[in-house]
Amino acid sequence: MSAALPRRLAAEFLGTALLVTAVVGSGIAAARLSPGDAGLQLLENSVATMLALGVLILIFGPVSGAHFNPVVSAASWWLHRRGADGLTAPEAGLYALAQVSGAVAGTVLANLMYALAPITRSTQVRTGAGLWLGETAATFGLILLVFALTRSGRGSLAPAAVGAYIGAAYWSTSSTSFANPAVTIGRAFTDTFAGIAPGSVPGFVLAQLVGLVAGAAAVMLFYPKPTAGATALTASP
Amino acid sequence: MSAALPRRLAAEFLGTALLVTAVVGSGIAAARLSPGDAGLQLLENSVATMLALGVLILIFGPVSGAHFNPVVSAASWWLHRRGADGLTAPEAGLYALAQVSGAVAGTVLANLMYALAPITRSTQVRTGAGLWLGETAATFGLILLVFALTRSGRGSLAPAAVGAYIGAAYWSTSSTSFANPAVTIGRAFTDTFAGIAPGSVPGFVLAQLVGLVAGAAAVMLFYPKPTAGATALTASP
Amino acid sequence: MSAALPRRLAAEFLGTALLVTAVVGSGIAAARLSPGDAGLQLLENSVATMLALGVLILIFGPVSGAHFNPVVSAASWWLHRRGADGLTAPEAGLYALAQVSGAVAGTVLANLMYALAPITRSTQVRTGAGLWLGETAATFGLILLVFALTRSGRGSLAPAAVGAYIGAAYWSTSSTSFANPAVTIGRAFTDTFAGIAPGSVPGFVLAQLVGLVAGAAAVMLFYPKPTAGATALTASP
Amino acid sequence: MSAALPRRLAAEFLGTALLVTAVVGSGIAAARLSPGDAGLQLLENSVATMLALGVLILIFGPVSGAHFNPVVSAASWWLHRRGADGLTAPEAGLYALAQVSGAVAGTVLANLMYALAPITRSTQVRTGAGLWLGETAATFGLILLVFALTRSGRGSLAPAAVGAYIGAAYWSTSSTSFANPAVTIGRAFTDTFAGIAPGSVPGFVLAQLVGLVAGAAAVMLFYPKPTAGATALTASP
Repeated sequence: MSAALPRRLAAEFLGTALLVTAVVGSGIAAARLSPGDAGLQLLENSVATMLALGVLILIFGPVSGAHFNPVVSAASWWLHRRGADGLTAPEAGLYALAQVSGAVAGTVLANLMYALAPITRSTQVRTGAGLWLGETAATFGLILLVFALTRSGRGSLAPAAVGAYIGAAYWSTSSTSFANPAVTIGRAFTDTFAGIAPGSVPGFVLAQLVGLVAGAAAVMLFYPKPTAGATALTASP
Repeated sequence: MSAALPRRLAAEFLGTALLVTAVVGSGIAAARLSPGDAGLQLLENSVATMLALGVLILIFGPVSGAHFNPVVSAASWWLHRRGADGLTAPEAGLYALAQVSGAVAGTVLANLMYALAPITRSTQVRTGAGLWLGETAATFGLILLVFALTRSGRGSLAPAAVGAYIGAAYWSTSSTSFANPAVTIGRAFTDTFAGIAPGSVPGFVLAQLVGLVAGAAAVMLFYPKPTAGATALTASP
Repeated sequence: MSAALPRRLAAEFLGTALLVTAVVGSGIAAARLSPGDAGLQLLENSVATMLALGVLILIFGPVSGAHFNPVVSAASWWLHRRGADGLTAPEAGLYALAQVSGAVAGTVLANLMYALAPITRSTQVRTGAGLWLGETAATFGLILLVFALTRSGRGSLAPAAVGAYIGAAYWSTSSTSFANPAVTIGRAFTDTFAGIAPGSVPGFVLAQLVGLVAGAAAVMLFYPKPTAGATALTASP
Repeated sequence: MSAALPRRLAAEFLGTALLVTAVVGSGIAAARLSPGDAGLQLLENSVATMLALGVLILIFGPVSGAHFNPVVSAASWWLHRRGADGLTAPEAGLYALAQVSGAVAGTVLANLMYALAPITRSTQVRTGAGLWLGETAATFGLILLVFALTRSGRGSLAPAAVGAYIGAAYWSTSSTSFANPAVTIGRAFTDTFAGIAPGSVPGFVLAQLVGLVAGAAAVMLFYPKPTAGATALTASP
């Protein structure tokens, strides 16, 4: 862990920002270019997000671990806490702050690129047991994937794998798989395709936290001990 | 093969469940978001399935081999039975049980996520010589691919390759390539896009078994002996 | 080159057959599921073909080199003829025979899967200077890609790379990039989406041969000497 | 750096030409096959471009570094100027000349393939602060990605990663992410889907140069020193 903490926090801020720019920006483009075709809109939005996420993990992985997601940072602290390469609890908290503020900044950038007001309040209500179950399942799978890879020495596959996971989860879950409290908060600040009404945010985040706990338990069941070749997501150039 | 059998069975159960959740869930999403556009629905469903399958093999491969499919488990027993790393016949039977029950559980999860009854009986008849030929060809190719990779020391390519195979086979075969008896049974329990009427299940499974035999024969023709670097699909963390 | 020639020819026959099954089969599926939407049809057809081609190269590469294409076999003979691992001229001729007969067999399989007559004569005229220029450019690029990889020790990237190439070339060239005399001939035997009228075949094949010569020249310009780590496409398990 | 400069310039010329052929050609195909569906057109165009770019980097990377883009060549000179393997300033200038002339040639080839006049003047105005912000962001991310990879010894991931980046950026930015002065100039010479009116070119190029400076600064922040295993994009077979 030789990268200094401020540089790692900058990476989490910028990486989360660009991720949300991709989610929100491709959502705006999809809604404008494919009006009235909700399926094609989601296909365009999900493919763009999948590709962007994979690329951003490539860029920032060696700097900060490329979590971009408070539940990943929390699991990194919990699952690696006895080892040398996980986050400490204070670090995980700072990561979460950087991620949430980055997510909001990314929404602003997307809004500006499309000549919209920097911040608007989403009116898209996303609520109900079905969606919450979707968020729990989506977060469960994300945590299981990320730490299945790192605990078995396959962290270098994370960019493609995590991107593909989100691409699949957009369609496989009823909630289109936010699976990320920071991104959920950021998406409340745009009244466009990818937005979520502020009142729907707490339900999503709660469901994500349930998924985090379940996912971490599954990691401990299936990958009880990191192998010799195991790598943390958090490395340094 | 150091992972304990119960843990491996849990992996087969959960992996097959999540695979079927992706198949059924993305089918429901596609049908809702792209009503009246059968081609776009299948594109959305096939892309999501392809990505999910690849990711699930990454997650569970080191635990149980990530078969998720009784014909793969049967071929693993048959083709590797003289070696140290294949399944025994009783293990293959237990794998199949875990896979079938996982497939049903995955259908239930998908139905619940979309606020449907946990189990409904599919009314989608899928029958006829053309479709059965499609299932035979699809299963033949799947078995040939999986064991071509493992017998030549390229098992680490299986996640991307098997995912891509299914993505292609959805479109290349007349049956949309179920190629998996467990998934076929699971899909009978949802009256949605990806469903199959219970009465159509036996024909599909029989065609898949023919494909299994033909595929195993092709493996023995083209890859008569595993190379030194060959790996079984079934490894352990 | 330890795989016996008959086994290699069987691999070329079966691999080319399954490739054409994917091209023709996904074309039929696309035309049926997306009637009246030519763009979506081609997207479905091109994605399925790209994925199938990549998978088939994975399956048959270690057996026969997975050429599936007479211009690749011809270039393998020409470019590697002074080395130990290229094809001899008679072998290249036998490869071409296996490829052409496989292509026809693959068309028959696709037609049967979709409950059509085994063989019909395509009525789709594909002719004109623009299309021929497209075929020349498509074949030029294919040859340059394949031998750029093998001459620089990156043959293991061929499955993904050649698949991606065809996926791009479907859209980038005016002819949808057949780039393969065997596949061109096979596609004359189906009066469906992917068909080509028999009268249009000679023009396409001639254009492909021009592309072969230009592509081989470009290989000699940019990769004049194979590197130490260079591998032929033709290896053996 | 053993490849002779003329051969490297030929690679930059041809690679940029084929990239622009893919961009313009797939744009024409998309507009013809999916008339009236702007979203589907951009999906087809972006997927084809993404795949083509990845393949072209594979082909020409070992020869010239596969920049195909004056801002990449400029950054290669700046960021590597103290090392042995970057471009010199005169080389970067010659690269840019080869890239711009290649881009125009690629447009001509695409126009001819589709039976259009070799050169037409685009009438598609692309202007405004939102689009310029999009170009700056797109170029920023491209530079950061390319040199994050090369400075951390992961240059072999560039083909897939840069392709994926462009595929995502098409949708995530308001400008569809030209991010390349040479390609921008080339696209002024076709009055088709991918064209840009000559009067809009200077604004785009200026925005790209701002992105170049910001991107290079980000590289120095996050990857201050190349690691031991770092590779330049510019290598030689």
